[in-house]
Amino acid sequence: MTGSNFLWLAPVGSIMALTFAWYLAASILKKDEGNEKMREIAQAVRVGARAYLKRQYAGVSLFFLVVFFILLLLALNKYLVIFVPFAFLTGGFFSGLSGFIGMSIATQSSARTTNAAMKSLNSGLRVAFSSGAVMGLVVVGLGLLDLSIWYFFLNAYYGSYSVPAWLPQWLYPYLRWAFEAHPLPIGTDKITAITSTMLCFGMGASFQALFARVGGGIFTKAADVGADLVGKVEAGIPEDDPRNPAVIADNVGDNVGDVAGMGADLYESYVGSIVATSVLGVAAGLGVAGVTVPMVMAAVGVVSSIIGTFFVHSREEATQKVLLAALRKGMFVSSLLVAIISYFLVKYTLGAQHLGVYWSVLSGLVAGVLIGLSTEYYTSSHFSPTRSIADASLTGPATVIIGGIAVGMMSTVIPVIVVGIAILLSYFLSGGATNFNSGIYGVGISAVGMLSILGITLATDAYGPVADNAGGNAQMANLDPEVRKRTDALDALGNTTAATGKGFAIGSAALTALALIAAYRDQVALYGKELNLSLMDPTILVGLFIGGMLPFVFCSMTMSAVGRAAGKIVVEVRRQFKEITGLMEGKAKPDYARCVTIATSAAQKEMIIPSLMAIIAPIAVGLLVGIKAVAGLLTGATVSGFVLAVMMANSGGAWDNAKKYIEEGHHGGKGSPAHKAVVVGDTVGDPFKDTSGPSLNILIKLMSMVSIVFASFVISYTLFK
Amino acid sequence: MTGSNFLWLAPVGSIMALTFAWYLAASILKKDEGNEKMREIAQAVRVGARAYLKRQYAGVSLFFLVVFFILLLLALNKYLVIFVPFAFLTGGFFSGLSGFIGMSIATQSSARTTNAAMKSLNSGLRVAFSSGAVMGLVVVGLGLLDLSIWYFFLNAYYGSYSVPAWLPQWLYPYLRWAFEAHPLPIGTDKITAITSTMLCFGMGASFQALFARVGGGIFTKAADVGADLVGKVEAGIPEDDPRNPAVIADNVGDNVGDVAGMGADLYESYVGSIVATSVLGVAAGLGVAGVTVPMVMAAVGVVSSIIGTFFVHSREEATQKVLLAALRKGMFVSSLLVAIISYFLVKYTLGAQHLGVYWSVLSGLVAGVLIGLSTEYYTSSHFSPTRSIADASLTGPATVIIGGIAVGMMSTVIPVIVVGIAILLSYFLSGGATNFNSGIYGVGISAVGMLSILGITLATDAYGPVADNAGGNAQMANLDPEVRKRTDALDALGNTTAATGKGFAIGSAALTALALIAAYRDQVALYGKELNLSLMDPTILVGLFIGGMLPFVFCSMTMSAVGRAAGKIVVEVRRQFKEITGLMEGKAKPDYARCVTIATSAAQKEMIIPSLMAIIAPIAVGLLVGIKAVAGLLTGATVSGFVLAVMMANSGGAWDNAKKYIEEGHHGGKGSPAHKAVVVGDTVGDPFKDTSGPSLNILIKLMSMVSIVFASFVISYTLFK
Repeated sequence: MTGSNFLWLAPVGSIMALTFAWYLAASILKKDEGNEKMREIAQAVRVGARAYLKRQYAGVSLFFLVVFFILLLLALNKYLVIFVPFAFLTGGFFSGLSGFIGMSIATQSSARTTNAAMKSLNSGLRVAFSSGAVMGLVVVGLGLLDLSIWYFFLNAYYGSYSVPAWLPQWLYPYLRWAFEAHPLPIGTDKITAITSTMLCFGMGASFQALFARVGGGIFTKAADVGADLVGKVEAGIPEDDPRNPAVIADNVGDNVGDVAGMGADLYESYVGSIVATSVLGVAAGLGVAGVTVPMVMAAVGVVSSIIGTFFVHSREEATQKVLLAALRKGMFVSSLLVAIISYFLVKYTLGAQHLGVYWSVLSGLVAGVLIGLSTEYYTSSHFSPTRSIADASLTGPATVIIGGIAVGMMSTVIPVIVVGIAILLSYFLSGGATNFNSGIYGVGISAVGMLSILGITLATDAYGPVADNAGGNAQMANLDPEVRKRTDALDALGNTTAATGKGFAIGSAALTALALIAAYRDQVALYGKELNLSLMDPTILVGLFIGGMLPFVFCSMTMSAVGRAAGKIVVEVRRQFKEITGLMEGKAKPDYARCVTIATSAAQKEMIIPSLMAIIAPIAVGLLVGIKAVAGLLTGATVSGFVLAVMMANSGGAWDNAKKYIEEGHHGGKGSPAHKAVVVGDTVGDPFKDTSGPSLNILIKLMSMVSIVFASFVISYTLFK
Repeated sequence: MTGSNFLWLAPVGSIMALTFAWYLAASILKKDEGNEKMREIAQAVRVGARAYLKRQYAGVSLFFLVVFFILLLLALNKYLVIFVPFAFLTGGFFSGLSGFIGMSIATQSSARTTNAAMKSLNSGLRVAFSSGAVMGLVVVGLGLLDLSIWYFFLNAYYGSYSVPAWLPQWLYPYLRWAFEAHPLPIGTDKITAITSTMLCFGMGASFQALFARVGGGIFTKAADVGADLVGKVEAGIPEDDPRNPAVIADNVGDNVGDVAGMGADLYESYVGSIVATSVLGVAAGLGVAGVTVPMVMAAVGVVSSIIGTFFVHSREEATQKVLLAALRKGMFVSSLLVAIISYFLVKYTLGAQHLGVYWSVLSGLVAGVLIGLSTEYYTSSHFSPTRSIADASLTGPATVIIGGIAVGMMSTVIPVIVVGIAILLSYFLSGGATNFNSGIYGVGISAVGMLSILGITLATDAYGPVADNAGGNAQMANLDPEVRKRTDALDALGNTTAATGKGFAIGSAALTALALIAAYRDQVALYGKELNLSLMDPTILVGLFIGGMLPFVFCSMTMSAVGRAAGKIVVEVRRQFKEITGLMEGKAKPDYARCVTIATSAAQKEMIIPSLMAIIAPIAVGLLVGIKAVAGLLTGATVSGFVLAVMMANSGGAWDNAKKYIEEGHHGGKGSPAHKAVVVGDTVGDPFKDTSGPSLNILIKLMSMVSIVFASFVISYTLFK
């Protein structure tokens, strides 16, 4: 095997991604932000978004500090490898940084998109898409960077079990105690030591991601719902009207939830799938090559994504359909490139006898595309499911709700079957029939395959909120209605691509979760406990039940949180309408900042309990019901979380597009009773698709990560060993 | 062991139940049905309900015939014991009969309840409760009858493997071929042969139950939603107004869905839990005693339930709260009696060394009560969850929907944890730590314990629809508003007790499902396949995913079906309002029968596909993914079905009671915007709580039954052995 020869490609891929992202960002910033009004609005959103993130990071830092010290305590008591607490910090830091950079460029791009849309639809698309591409490339670039740094550091360290020679000498005394605290069983070989240490790193990224998704999700939907309830419904002013005090908060929300949250989320998915697969590769006896394949495949994905972005262009006055085709072309080109290059990667890294692993890559890639197409079918108003919801609006809001839930539930069939087939194919084609570890490594690789083109899928995904903000900007700046029409077209496209992105995230989460559960079992085995995970074991069954319930509880908490936070916005907006004289007449300016502050503090407060649940549940079940029950919990949560996440994302997307379909003039158009009915559906769908649903994949993986990191501690103190 | 000495108590219990039911029915029929108008309305409902059931049974008979011949074919090819096809028919017959008798007495009781309510609330309660008690006792009586007949027949047959001497001689030649077709492995001992044969019997009951629940559920909610959408919303006439053409269909629906459907459902739960537990008892090496305990405990439950009914009474002018206390007292007395008597039953049947099994009984009983209390907390307007939904109505229907879903999701916590604790306690206290089969027998026993007092829990449950119909009768007959107020009080009480009953059904289903999965594994082992059901096996994981998805798909199908069927009713009601002159002025009578016919044929058509899914899914997965995947499928379906069923039942109940709370005058009362918002919630909740949710427990068990019955066939033809 010649695996290690290629590993240097990982940092190279990282640098390429970051360099190209920097180039794209620079070219966006060169563009004109439009007239003064437009710049002013964009600035207000930027200030609000920065303020939110500042507050969020401050709160999260405190939390990270607490967990860091807990982990340090565990490490000093030999329950953990000493590097874990530090890697926890870097994972959290890079995940947060991904979100921050993505959001910074997004808030810089919205007014520029509006300005470009004054010229043509295509120009608008290009600015917004470039902004998305920056985010996509930053996520993969930082992910590969973090992984590369740690891999090369640990490789050097475990090579001699001493301070690597290239570290400055003065660090030595400080690090000495750390190295002496290393608790991996004597005799663990180098590559096992590296991967089982790196496995724990995902936890920091997962934490950051959960906070970002939940906090951002609560913020964005509270502001959105709050703005709509008072503005549209009570005061009767249009969406994005500058007289609405919550309008800036609404626009800020798109950035902190749909951009920063999503960035952190997918950073976590990306890094998580790579480290989990690496661990399985080593367990499968593939040695360094087992690590090389997922890491380098990610690098291959970077190059493919960059090339793919060049295919996203179209004629100046293209229709929405042509634009969608343009976005798709970019994705298909990238997929094809990954499919071709990874063949050679697998062949020359693992050798011809392991070529089955290549089929795992393909099955993951194809599964991702199929989930995307299925999502489009269920959420686009060009197809019957979403139209049936629009039709149901004729008999009122209740039938809209029933119809949307039914569509969401039915939409789970294809993703579940596709993921099922991907699991079986990647398992058996990678040799699972004769070697369990090889098979499960194949499953992990298929997740990496699905996520490899994240650079471009995230670009098509993250461009949506930019287009949404661009529309808000056009409305508030009183631009020509034609501009708003163009940004609306971009926005509608964004709804479909956003749903597709969520499908990718949850599909890969299902595949990664299996890898993580296997990794949990291996980690527990490393501490001397071989687990027989029989379905018929009552403790495992109880774990399955509890795990199956947790996503429901989590959704309940986050949806209620949105409701409470929105209530606070409602009160504030009502107060401003009443107390600020001349507001409704447009003579006085509302206090935008106050709404941002209220949404911020509500989101910060509300995200604590659901996030704590993710940490406490697996540890509590491990201590009270046993370490086997934890495996049951993780499996149960994956099963019900997967199905529930798909349902919520697609119900929400379908409601949103059913509303847009009616706003295009069907069934009486805007203002008709049918429209009122679909607005109810859309409002219900908001927390479904933007708060609760997309957090579930993080919840699942975070619980797996927590189980793995605390495994050795739980083994020592559990009531049922 | 002296187990067989007590087995004769099972048929005795059956006869007692049926006799007391007959006595109660006779005393109801002696009561006055009120004035001519009241009798006329009651008669219309009776005719409609009979017509529906006739049509339903005709359709279902055809289906049973087809399945019967398929089973016969399988039996003749030695894939099944020859008695299974016949027992399939008797199970279906008795399950249907339970529903039919329950419905007949319910439709006889509604006008009598109205008439009694003219005197006092307590008198009304007594009639309605007696009607419910008839149903409860018929269900347990017929269940025990069916089981006893087959047990004694098989006991005689397997004793000599020839025609029992007490069968008439002329039957001999006809049965000869049947007996020769017996395919149980040579050397299987008598009691194993009996129980593994009886295990397959539950399938008939499950089929009948699924059809009754789904068909009835679609009928009742289509009529309800259809009547409300045109009558209340468009025409602006009150609920249960005789001018509404769908009003009789609505009242018929309460009987065919909530009574006949529920009767068949709980018959299935009852019989299923007893046979599954018997099989496990034998597998645990307890011999005949393992069968005696669940059968006789059921008989003990009959006696306890009968005694309990005498405690359900109160002062003449009692408040609603006092009435609820009266109903509860009956349940507590019955529980206590079962708790006491079963101690001696276990001690003298299994012997003192197996006294741990008694704790399983207790854990099941207590778990049932706790689930009931939790349901009450989440669905009664006396507590904060339902009030929070009512409060959300102030910000419109969207927040009512979000609030209701959040409450339903949160309400899954207690049932899941309670069932989890019950599983662990009953498993380990029955000796699971040293003997797996003993432990899992304990889990089965806890399900039997929970269901043992079904006679009285079903009585409190089935009285609800009677009270509901009584209210309709009072309204249509233009009685004193005071009477309607009393029937409304009875009805509101019924909402809470109905939700409690559903909690029992799904809780026991979760416990029974485990027993059935174990039974599946044992059945497969009987055909020479020992299954290693590891969570890490990818085929099992795929099974878990598919299983986790199926309840969602099933709910989607049944909810969409309600929507489509309601649409047909809407069209018909609009037509009658338009075409029948003088209808709105009360001068002409609407064509009630036509609405009943439309709802009937829609329900019959719509119930086919969801029901087929329950049969085809486990067989298809078995053939295409393997017999292990079936175990995964059953487990996944149990996990997500349990959680989803609790959520849907409680969301629905909470919405309904939030509406009632506002109708009592809070937040502006009837006609206010808040009221309109909660009406939307209530309409969404209708299919949640009365169609989709309560069918899930049957779906889970039917899939288990199908897997068991077709196990030997699937083993022969699966692609992955």
